[in-house]
Amino acid sequence: MKGMMMDRPLSIPAIIDLAAEVHAKTEIVSVATEGGIHRTTYGDIHKRVAQLAHGLRALGVKPGDRVATLAWNGYRHFELYYAISGIGAVCHTVNPRLFPEQLVYIINHAQDTALFFDITFAPLIAALRPKLPEGLTYVAMTGREAMPAQEGLDGLLCYEDLLAGQPETITWPDLDENTAAALSYTSGTTGEPKGVLYSHRSQVIHAMTSVIGASRYFGMGKKILPVVPLFHVNAWALPYSAPISGTSLIFPGAKLDGASLFNLMDTEKVDNSWGVPTVWLGLLNEMNQRGRKPEGLTDVIIGGSAAPQPMIEAFERNFGISVCHGWGMTEMSPIGTFGMLSPEMERLPLDEKVALKVRQGRRLFTVDMKIVDENGRELPKDGVVFGELCVRGPAVASGYYNNEAATAQAIDSEGWFKTGDVAKITPDGFLQIVDRTKDLVKSGGEWISSIDLENAALGCPGVANCAVLAMPHPRWGERPLLIVVPRPDAKPAKEDILAYLATKVASWQVPDDVLFVENIPLTATGKISKLELRKTLKDYVLPSAA
Amino acid sequence: MKGMMMDRPLSIPAIIDLAAEVHAKTEIVSVATEGGIHRTTYGDIHKRVAQLAHGLRALGVKPGDRVATLAWNGYRHFELYYAISGIGAVCHTVNPRLFPEQLVYIINHAQDTALFFDITFAPLIAALRPKLPEGLTYVAMTGREAMPAQEGLDGLLCYEDLLAGQPETITWPDLDENTAAALSYTSGTTGEPKGVLYSHRSQVIHAMTSVIGASRYFGMGKKILPVVPLFHVNAWALPYSAPISGTSLIFPGAKLDGASLFNLMDTEKVDNSWGVPTVWLGLLNEMNQRGRKPEGLTDVIIGGSAAPQPMIEAFERNFGISVCHGWGMTEMSPIGTFGMLSPEMERLPLDEKVALKVRQGRRLFTVDMKIVDENGRELPKDGVVFGELCVRGPAVASGYYNNEAATAQAIDSEGWFKTGDVAKITPDGFLQIVDRTKDLVKSGGEWISSIDLENAALGCPGVANCAVLAMPHPRWGERPLLIVVPRPDAKPAKEDILAYLATKVASWQVPDDVLFVENIPLTATGKISKLELRKTLKDYVLPSAA
Ligand SMILES: Nc1ncnc2c1ncn2[C@@H]1O[C@H](COP(=O)(O)OP(=O)(O)OP(=O)(O)O)[C@@H](O)[C@H]1O
Ligand SMILES: Nc1ncnc2c1ncn2[C@@H]1O[C@H](COP(=O)(O)OP(=O)(O)OP(=O)(O)O)[C@@H](O)[C@H]1O
Ligand SMILES: [Mg+2]
Ligand SMILES: [Mg+2]
Repeated sequence: MKGMMMDRPLSIPAIIDLAAEVHAKTEIVSVATEGGIHRTTYGDIHKRVAQLAHGLRALGVKPGDRVATLAWNGYRHFELYYAISGIGAVCHTVNPRLFPEQLVYIINHAQDTALFFDITFAPLIAALRPKLPEGLTYVAMTGREAMPAQEGLDGLLCYEDLLAGQPETITWPDLDENTAAALSYTSGTTGEPKGVLYSHRSQVIHAMTSVIGASRYFGMGKKILPVVPLFHVNAWALPYSAPISGTSLIFPGAKLDGASLFNLMDTEKVDNSWGVPTVWLGLLNEMNQRGRKPEGLTDVIIGGSAAPQPMIEAFERNFGISVCHGWGMTEMSPIGTFGMLSPEMERLPLDEKVALKVRQGRRLFTVDMKIVDENGRELPKDGVVFGELCVRGPAVASGYYNNEAATAQAIDSEGWFKTGDVAKITPDGFLQIVDRTKDLVKSGGEWISSIDLENAALGCPGVANCAVLAMPHPRWGERPLLIVVPRPDAKPAKEDILAYLATKVASWQVPDDVLFVENIPLTATGKISKLELRKTLKDYVLPSAA
Repeated sequence: MKGMMMDRPLSIPAIIDLAAEVHAKTEIVSVATEGGIHRTTYGDIHKRVAQLAHGLRALGVKPGDRVATLAWNGYRHFELYYAISGIGAVCHTVNPRLFPEQLVYIINHAQDTALFFDITFAPLIAALRPKLPEGLTYVAMTGREAMPAQEGLDGLLCYEDLLAGQPETITWPDLDENTAAALSYTSGTTGEPKGVLYSHRSQVIHAMTSVIGASRYFGMGKKILPVVPLFHVNAWALPYSAPISGTSLIFPGAKLDGASLFNLMDTEKVDNSWGVPTVWLGLLNEMNQRGRKPEGLTDVIIGGSAAPQPMIEAFERNFGISVCHGWGMTEMSPIGTFGMLSPEMERLPLDEKVALKVRQGRRLFTVDMKIVDENGRELPKDGVVFGELCVRGPAVASGYYNNEAATAQAIDSEGWFKTGDVAKITPDGFLQIVDRTKDLVKSGGEWISSIDLENAALGCPGVANCAVLAMPHPRWGERPLLIVVPRPDAKPAKEDILAYLATKVASWQVPDDVLFVENIPLTATGKISKLELRKTLKDYVLPSAA
């Protein structure tokens, strides 16, 4: 028997409609690409979203068209999120930090019809243009007065011209909730980026479950600074979860160094801020130098790759900032788990609390998780056994856009998505990511977690950053190699590091060698690029294997 | 173009699965019908929900079957919510306070196959049984030791027997999210109760939107006491919204008088409590007598009928308890609006704050609202014009269960649900219920709001309770009659009340007469029954009309 309830769709533009009505005066503050601070409100931005939607239609954008953005975190990018999805087109956020070849690949693969970009990217776009689809419409996200005088961009349109004179209200089309709304490509950490095509339904459900799972960070009067970019999996849903809950958004623009973030948080009295581990290194540095935290900052939310134990501890112990460690994937919209602790856990001694926070938190509503062995058999959630993590839910990808090969590999026979992550799950529901399948060091019959080793090594004096790679070994199959970036003022010795590690991990897990480097290559989303590292080190041979 | 996301259903049992895993130790505390306090947790109750689900199947309950409950707020009732819906059957919560004829009507109309009842209702059930469907299975919600020794209940089953020996885990069937999950009948304030058939989708969406719209009341560490009964529109979604957000539930059982509520809130350190205006009279009395509020109580949420201005003010001014005034309907799952204020509004002087709170708050996400004139034309949301309120959304009824006549009347040509309420909507989104269409006093060309008049009269010294009815009038069509229950210690004079009102409302709105009564009849959900009042006063003639 069916219920007798209205068949009304979940819809992305309904979020901004609500915010404009119920949270009209709540602010969106942006560091503008043209310089200065731009302030608007949900009430006012709604009018511009409507104008932009009309402007997009005038430009010929049709339902189903992919419209690309290449832009920082700012109000115009936010407007594009709503206007593009609102008229039934697909908002394709492109990561400008990708290699030029990857940008060309992605924009051609998505067959975008228009490309909106921040003026900072004018030279990049001009350089890429010869390889981008013919007939692509180019729009600079600025006003007439700041239009870039870049050669090679003839026919360039101006964002503010698109809006000018358009009506400030709109009646959104009634879209089936499964209509495609947004497209994000994975980070390309393990290979070529793959496209995930979100629907209105998946985005709205995900926004709601993330507010519910992390309710402490959201609500009227709260201010969130997303360091995580709008071009990286919907900035972890914040452009949806903030307005749906009446939370203010503070967009940092292009300047993401520690000092800029500190100042912005300080003046805007940001409550909490979200980003990948690498961005927090800069902020922690800045806080150390100034001997204080930005005023009002109570929480940082860390995800995208493992938050190292020393980083969590530095926030908690030195500055009284509470860390929430989450885990997710582009394929999960992206949040899978959040590290909110129960009140009893919050009362634990700091060490125990930090140990809990090194884990990746607990699942959001609608996210089903299981771990399986190599044969796909489910393993117990006992906190000991680990296996490949598989997930399922209405905000999980059922495949990749125009990529049947990757799709076939990703979905198991029962319809679960195979994450490529190896994990344990504790009886009380905490996820602990052991490693990516591809990064695990398979040494003899045992597996060594590169994440655990990196966590341990980061606690070693003199180590600023590090990475562990599996290296071929004639006897053991693979053995770990530790790559270290020393602190500017330090010259840690290999022997000292290994001796330190021997006190932290089992002896058979201690790396076979340590290499010192000046920089570790990062992916476009700020993760350590083991792919790059492996390429650089393809001729390296472990001393123990020589 | 469709998104490429998994086609996974929203599901009610997924809520209790999540709570059992992520909020395992969060408590459900119940005043037991057998006496004493019963304590359990989401982790433990999950096992009993699984056992009950198996037990229901063993009893022959099939997907689509309606299973009725007649019970107070307690853990077994909560278990039934999940077990019945979880196996694809329909949880039909029946209001034991209805007149016996209405109970008989509803249970026959719903064609329930089983009836679960609290032992307090054994005599009632025995009396009704001859008129209830043949073959109905009767289950007393208690253990062997407390089974009622009531005549006329042969074949009565015992709830705990159903659970005993059943497995403590269950794999829920994969149900289409539009599957019927629950059935509630309207309060019967304006006529015969009508059945609303909720789906898994509507219940889950509504639970999520209500947590988001009232996030302050929910979350780990928070404790909610639902005075609003589980038999009254899903206790305003609390059995879903509390576990989905990790909030503790304190169930008061049968004792809802001021002293019992006060004591329970006080010992359990309840944070917030939800109920209709009439229940708060008792609590306010008790707080006045003790000269304090229950420890920890910060918020009360009032809805179901208009929260009178003096009641809101008493909570806020005398006890520092923040009032949230909401509006809803059985047909809306039921919450339509919530009165959460923005931080700026919270900083207003108390008088202005209270004035804002007399309004019914702002809409939840997914709830679309419009007001229309008699011809169905949309009216502006200017806070001045009023018209019939129409609503739309995935948690709004598309019709009534087995009641085509009522369905046809309720839905307009564009698919909106006509609420039967007359309202204004302010530009900043506040709903103000002027009256029910049926209760408005149509005097000459003007309309007088009975709610406004009642609000004003309740501020008059000596008035404990009151109601305004439209009475026929030869010249004006209708004129207002004020019916007053005096305070126990007071004998207010008609002239004084009318003189007082003349200072509060326009002169043409002042009632034509005042009648004093000892009691005002209430409906089964604690609302003033104007239907009853009208029956009692059918021969009454206004002095001005004589
Ligand atoms: N808190 C975390 N701890 C450990 N790993 C994490 C965490 N959060 C995310 N990750 C890693 O990031 C992955 C998801 O990242 P994302 O979707 O951005 O692309 P990617 O996996 O890095 O790139 P690609 O899929 O293209 O190789 C997860 O599968 C996991 O390996
Ligand atoms: N805060 C409020 N202020 C004024 N009226 C309210 C408020 N909350 C609810 N109501 C009234 O209650 C109605 C919904 O109540 P419910 O669904 O319990 O049944 P009912 O309308 O009282 O009964 P029936 O529909 O059977 O006549 C609304 O339509 C409205 O008239
Ligand atoms: Mg990946
Ligand atoms: Mg009604």
